[in-house]
This record gives sequence, C-alpha cells and structure tokens, in this order.
Amino acid sequence: MAKLRLDISISLDGYVAGPNPTEEEPLGIGGEQLHEWALELEAWRSPHGLEGGVVNESSRVMEESQAGLGATIMGRNMFGGEGSWEEKPWDGWWGEEPPFHMPVFVLTHYERAPLVKDGGTTFTFVTDGIESALEQAREAAGGKDIAIAGGADVAQQFLRAGLVDEMQLHVAPVLLGGGRRLFDNLEGANLVLECIRVVAAPGVTHLKYRIGS
Amino acid sequence: MAKLRLDISISLDGYVAGPNPTEEEPLGIGGEQLHEWALELEAWRSPHGLEGGVVNESSRVMEESQAGLGATIMGRNMFGGEGSWEEKPWDGWWGEEPPFHMPVFVLTHYERAPLVKDGGTTFTFVTDGIESALEQAREAAGGKDIAIAGGADVAQQFLRAGLVDEMQLHVAPVLLGGGRRLFDNLEGANLVLECIRVVAAPGVTHLKYRIGS
Repeated sequence: MAKLRLDISISLDGYVAGPNPTEEEPLGIGGEQLHEWALELEAWRSPHGLEGGVVNESSRVMEESQAGLGATIMGRNMFGGEGSWEEKPWDGWWGEEPPFHMPVFVLTHYERAPLVKDGGTTFTFVTDGIESALEQAREAAGGKDIAIAGGADVAQQFLRAGLVDEMQLHVAPVLLGGGRRLFDNLEGANLVLECIRVVAAPGVTHLKYRIGS
Repeated sequence: MAKLRLDISISLDGYVAGPNPTEEEPLGIGGEQLHEWALELEAWRSPHGLEGGVVNESSRVMEESQAGLGATIMGRNMFGGEGSWEEKPWDGWWGEEPPFHMPVFVLTHYERAPLVKDGGTTFTFVTDGIESALEQAREAAGGKDIAIAGGADVAQQFLRAGLVDEMQLHVAPVLLGGGRRLFDNLEGANLVLECIRVVAAPGVTHLKYRIGS
C-alpha cells in the first residue's frame, strides 16, 4: 500500500526551526542551517529551477524522497500567510510554478477554493482535519506515496495519530538551543520505530525509520 | 593531545533517561531501552564479568570507546547515593571490582577520602568543580584519553564549558517523551560540531562528532 512519508531536517538537539522566527528569519535564529545540506544540492536546485549545485551522498536521498510521490500535505504556515483568506487572499510562498508538481493539500481553519498553479501543482484547502486531508491525498495520489511537507505541528498531528509509515530525519550537526521541537505533543502515540537506513553525507546524517504502533 | 570524550546513549527525542526515575527504575520509564543495544554485546558483557553476548556492528564501537582511556569522570548520581557521606557511607553501584579498571573522578559536593577497589579502579572524590576534575584526570591518565561517563548534568557542564573534544551519541530508536535531555542548559556554549563517523547497527545508530568552538 502507498505510504505516508515524513521527511524533515532537524538539529541534533531536536529542533525543526530555531527560536524567535520573524519575517526576515522565518525559520528562527539559526534555522537556515538545518537546510544548508539540501540547498547546495543539484538534486534540490534543479526542480526549483536553479542551475548548478553539488552531487554527493545526499543526492540519492533527495532524489529518492521526491520519487514515487503522488500528493503532498502541508500546514497553513508552510503554505504561507495567516488568518482568513478574505483578509489576506495571498497565494503563499511558492510562486507561479511551485516545485511540487502534484496535488498539495493544505490544512487550514479557513475554507477556500482550490488554487491551480503552473507545472501541475494544485493547492486544495482542507478544513476538516488530518484524516480528511490524508483521504483526499490518497485519492489524488493514485496509489503513489504521500509526503508530509511540514511544519512541525502538522507532522506531530500525523505522528500522534499513528498515521506516518516512514520518517526520515536529516540531522544537521547544529545545536539550536530553542525553537520548534519535532518530538513534542506526542503523548499517547506509542510509536514503534525501526531504523531501516542510515546515510552519512557532508553536513548531514540521514536516518530513515519505519514506524509501527 | 589526549581527548575528553563523551559517549552516551540517547533516545531519538533527545533523552538520556526517561521520566519518573525510582529506585526500581533508576533510568526512568522506558530508560532501559536506551542501553539494550549495549547490554547484549559480548564487548560489554565480558568486561563486566558476564558470559555470552552477541557480536555485531556495535562491537567495534564499544571496543573503541573503551580503548585508549586513562581516566573516567562521573557525577555523584552515577557513582551512587546522595547526601553527605557521613550519613550514608555507601560505596556506590559498582561493587568490589568495578568495570572501569582505571582512576575514576567523582564530582560531588561532599569531601571523602579516595576509595580503592579491586581491578585497578580508584574512586577519587572532587568537590571543586569540573575543571579541577579534568586536571586531576589528565594527570592520572598519563597522556591517554578521558571519558565522561555521565550523567546528563555532568555532561552538560563539560559541554557548556567547551571542554569536550569528541561526542558519540548512541541513538536508540525510541521516543521517551520525557525525562532528562542531554542538550539542555547549554546557553552560551556555541559549540561547532562536525560528524566524523556514522555506524548503523541493530537497534542503535552511532553518531560521532568532533567538537570545536
């Protein structure tokens, strides 16, 4: 069966964003360091329309995490904006041709008509919770896997509900000392983890876990 | 120069002991899971006077972490007991022939004469702080490395002071959801980490970091 996959960059002390996020530093103080390993990769730059970049042990990890996906789920903050759409009918961070090239389901408290973008990305706004988002994503994915793109709150909701099949942590060798922890708010989840693949790469260690319960 | 090394088992959510430690469960709820990978190894059982055990990818990690050491530093809780020695002149958890076979320096608030055990282990009690303990350990180690045996509080003191040269995390695939975090109380430490070795093994992933500042 198609898997629900969580791929997320995390500091060695467990944060997926640093403290004190602002408009200039949306990932919080030091948070950008979590993604340096990815941003320098050709395998990341190419689908984002950028030239150049390096090829290293992280390249196949990145390619693999993008392969076999039929839909993506993300939180409202990751899509962009806050509050009701009437007040701020913004189309999010992702520009006219978002890098997803697949159906994206955005968890939000505010109803909104789907947003069709160039290159195959359609944002569908889901107001009735994670299980509904997953059901719609499964239907849209046509048998392919589904990615949880983040952020931490959405990841925690899916982990707590025991719905995540596979989790890959991209562990950056930094201590942020504060911010958003991935493994918070998981009371009662009782997840059983098995490490199924480890890749050491420049500036990051990739740890992949199968999740049972 | 001889290195100060921290080797410690940790949960995927960053805890080195679980919540609610008691006399029956000194490592807190679920805390024993952090050490399962080690306890089954022949490389752990043999120096602890136990027969049997398995050999796997963790064996060389364990042997390496025990090799080249000339002294060990630990906290009072790890030695055993609490309060003044006059009230409870206990000789700790470690029995008549402790598994260290080297000088051990115990950080405590209470002065006490050194304790000589069988097999080359001498416990020396240090009341004037981590730098004094490290200095005495360096002298005793005769050019060999020094290990910080734990617990979390002692590890944090040395990390915060920027004195640790190498840190190896033995990451167990469990989420404890509470307890003692290793990476707490590190305000102002500003450590620069570089991952220098990764070993995937049954039930654990070994991540070794060089620490600069």
